[in-house]
Amino acid sequence: MATPARSHTLSELAERFGLELRGAGSTVIQGVGTLAGAGAWQLGFLANPRYRKELAATAASAVVLSADDADACPVPCLVAKSPYVAFAKIAALFEAEPALEPGIHPSAVIAADALVDPGAQIGPFTVIGARSRVAAGAVVGPGCVVGEDCSIGAGSLLVARVTLVARVRLGARVRIHPGAVLGADGFGLAMDAGRWIKVPQLGGVVIGDDCEIGANTTIDRGAIEDTVLEEDVRLDNQIQVGHNVRIGAHTAMAGCAAVAGSAKIGRYCLIGGGVGVTGHLEICDRVTVTAMSLVTRSITEPGEYSSGMPVQDSRSWRRNGARFRQLDALARKIGALDKD
Amino acid sequence: MATPARSHTLSELAERFGLELRGAGSTVIQGVGTLAGAGAWQLGFLANPRYRKELAATAASAVVLSADDADACPVPCLVAKSPYVAFAKIAALFEAEPALEPGIHPSAVIAADALVDPGAQIGPFTVIGARSRVAAGAVVGPGCVVGEDCSIGAGSLLVARVTLVARVRLGARVRIHPGAVLGADGFGLAMDAGRWIKVPQLGGVVIGDDCEIGANTTIDRGAIEDTVLEEDVRLDNQIQVGHNVRIGAHTAMAGCAAVAGSAKIGRYCLIGGGVGVTGHLEICDRVTVTAMSLVTRSITEPGEYSSGMPVQDSRSWRRNGARFRQLDALARKIGALDKD
Amino acid sequence: MATPARSHTLSELAERFGLELRGAGSTVIQGVGTLAGAGAWQLGFLANPRYRKELAATAASAVVLSADDADACPVPCLVAKSPYVAFAKIAALFEAEPALEPGIHPSAVIAADALVDPGAQIGPFTVIGARSRVAAGAVVGPGCVVGEDCSIGAGSLLVARVTLVARVRLGARVRIHPGAVLGADGFGLAMDAGRWIKVPQLGGVVIGDDCEIGANTTIDRGAIEDTVLEEDVRLDNQIQVGHNVRIGAHTAMAGCAAVAGSAKIGRYCLIGGGVGVTGHLEICDRVTVTAMSLVTRSITEPGEYSSGMPVQDSRSWRRNGARFRQLDALARKIGALDKD
Repeated sequence: MATPARSHTLSELAERFGLELRGAGSTVIQGVGTLAGAGAWQLGFLANPRYRKELAATAASAVVLSADDADACPVPCLVAKSPYVAFAKIAALFEAEPALEPGIHPSAVIAADALVDPGAQIGPFTVIGARSRVAAGAVVGPGCVVGEDCSIGAGSLLVARVTLVARVRLGARVRIHPGAVLGADGFGLAMDAGRWIKVPQLGGVVIGDDCEIGANTTIDRGAIEDTVLEEDVRLDNQIQVGHNVRIGAHTAMAGCAAVAGSAKIGRYCLIGGGVGVTGHLEICDRVTVTAMSLVTRSITEPGEYSSGMPVQDSRSWRRNGARFRQLDALARKIGALDKD
Repeated sequence: MATPARSHTLSELAERFGLELRGAGSTVIQGVGTLAGAGAWQLGFLANPRYRKELAATAASAVVLSADDADACPVPCLVAKSPYVAFAKIAALFEAEPALEPGIHPSAVIAADALVDPGAQIGPFTVIGARSRVAAGAVVGPGCVVGEDCSIGAGSLLVARVTLVARVRLGARVRIHPGAVLGADGFGLAMDAGRWIKVPQLGGVVIGDDCEIGANTTIDRGAIEDTVLEEDVRLDNQIQVGHNVRIGAHTAMAGCAAVAGSAKIGRYCLIGGGVGVTGHLEICDRVTVTAMSLVTRSITEPGEYSSGMPVQDSRSWRRNGARFRQLDALARKIGALDKD
Repeated sequence: MATPARSHTLSELAERFGLELRGAGSTVIQGVGTLAGAGAWQLGFLANPRYRKELAATAASAVVLSADDADACPVPCLVAKSPYVAFAKIAALFEAEPALEPGIHPSAVIAADALVDPGAQIGPFTVIGARSRVAAGAVVGPGCVVGEDCSIGAGSLLVARVTLVARVRLGARVRIHPGAVLGADGFGLAMDAGRWIKVPQLGGVVIGDDCEIGANTTIDRGAIEDTVLEEDVRLDNQIQVGHNVRIGAHTAMAGCAAVAGSAKIGRYCLIGGGVGVTGHLEICDRVTVTAMSLVTRSITEPGEYSSGMPVQDSRSWRRNGARFRQLDALARKIGALDKD
């Protein structure tokens, strides 16, 4: 099962993670849970105020929370500046990640001139292409295809069924989830005498240290130069990153966002789910874009941007939508009335 | 070929599915088709009024339709309360699904402590991980990866190249199309001293009986508790379901919809293509959301909701869009004029 | 590496591709690059006016550009009517595509009655199902699953981990990127007594010559008749094409676009990223739809259409959005004021 019988006292946890202990330090913790779901020997957490109402009735043996909520806590607690960060660190103690088992599965097909470190693990039905390298401590799970001229840095994990098509270089501790495809041809076309011709995609993909790439996300390789994710970029599932995009360090993007070719996104940006960014523009550092918004011009000021329109009942929506189609005319009419 | 030489008379079909027969019951049916495409020995159907104009010229040997259309039908017909349901049931008689061939392909890699029922079928290049179970009558097609602690219920079908990452429990008769990824890490991050740290994803995924999951759809496992689809939920292709989402029984979602973490969707909902639902909210039973709408607050009343904006010619659109950016100012001006 | 030591003089290139040479024809070109990135022995290109400012400082040995820019070029140049097309053709000289290696990898699983031409290449861990055919010069890369009754035309390329589920026929020179799924069940459901029943999907998929299909794109097979892409259709990554859709020749669609069942899209259309097209409608030839727009009715006139709304700062957006919900009421008020 997921949570083996590991055991820590509350005072151990307080000391280890620099948290303030309130209540019995001898309280034994053997797992974690939500405020509503945690039971005996489990540590609950309160990070989102939305769940504050569940604190009084919690059956958790202890709770990690912020100073503001500590007085209301009916059980022993750990007070943290950021309860979510503290919870993440404590929960990791109870996570059962499969241990590294170095070696190459006998079914794997490794090119003669590929270099797989003896300390790396290669799963069944995985293919490693010519001139590609896998560093020590890296795991390439089952069913992966690593093409030519790729490299996988130390401690990186390709969970399963990941494809690196060609010229993809991963830094250290990169984590890629199943179905992701990195290094496929960018979408480069030119219309010539009524037919498309394909523009060769000669670049690669460079992924910085500590990046995480979600399930079924796609990152195309560059047309000439590389597509780049700087360090600690976090991409959720089903994100599309076009050729020659550059994403700055520590930026996170939620599911189904898409970035068109040659766009540049800054550092510490938060891109919401389903957001679209068109090509050849720049978004500066520390920009937040809310869900399902469309960015068509460069953004030069940090801050939060939106264009996602929330639902109404369909009848009202249709009436308002019909007026939207007359909006310019309506505005002119207001202008005229104003002059009268 | 898809339609083998199976043969039924119209009166057999009428009796078997409780339909009213009009015309020659001895009419032989050996396949199905559209009104416009069906020919001799084929049964056409009229379910969508959009195609009514094609009835008069149909070359089908017979048609299944509703009572209202029966008089206009130039050939023998079967009258059904729901012609689409009747058609679905009749068409299934002519479907050639590959027969179950129990057994494990010699290339498959099965963990020593996995339990595969002798009545299950495991395809080539498929991996079954530690402590996972596959029930009788289940088919795990070629190229699938089933991780640790998963279970696949009786009669379920993983068509090909499906991944169940870890702690994914499928009910009976679940059908999953290629490229789908269930049980990948949820997107849980906390910012700590300028870097992201990963929040462990300790939960699993529970899929109820009779669910169907489309190609390249992703369903993350829960952070602490499980991500849940109740029975008979139907998901189209390329849908993204975040961690700890719960989707009620009999709800259907069209392609490319996305539901963010911890959202709860009720029973008998219809979620249109490309719809986005943000996290930590609730949608009650029997809610329809039309294509490309965005739900950012809980919906507590059944009914239809929209925010997808249909296209105009780009020139009008740009003019109206520019006015939208002044809308609050325009509204204030109207208010002022109204007071004059 | 990507760019082997191939070498051409500028006059060779001018003659081969019918371009006007200005400057030293003996200039040696061994690779291509961007204006800003190209160095000695490399050819840069100027196709997008956005990059014109980089021309003066280019370190490229030569540049391909249009007549308008030739005078400003500090190095020898090739003048082209369409510099992008010329660049695409020249760049292809420097592309190192893996050579065809005919034969079937020993690990591949080929049905007894499948027909694989001796001039085709089948990669490791690939499955070819009953009655399927692979033509000469076709490459089915590693980890692909080709189901029953499929055919792959001459010179086609399935890069890796592509699935053709059943009844998928590819023309010649079709190129499909990893993770794409063609021929999965269309999303056909009918509600019967409170439960969904599945509508059999008896059709197939037909892909014309010279089509390209992006990574993780999905194209469902038809319910009765086929889903069809005519020749030279170009689909980017993560596109969803529903059952019985028809897409006309030479149409290109950008990433994450989606087309619902039975929609028909004309020839020479350009469909932007994230665009949604609802079902059972028609778009005529030579229609452009800009990013993240929603098409809910047929389009009968060529031209450009939009409904994607660009971002504002969130505060302004929320104010304007609130007014949008009152838009019909505001419009009525304007009407009343106008009458006064």
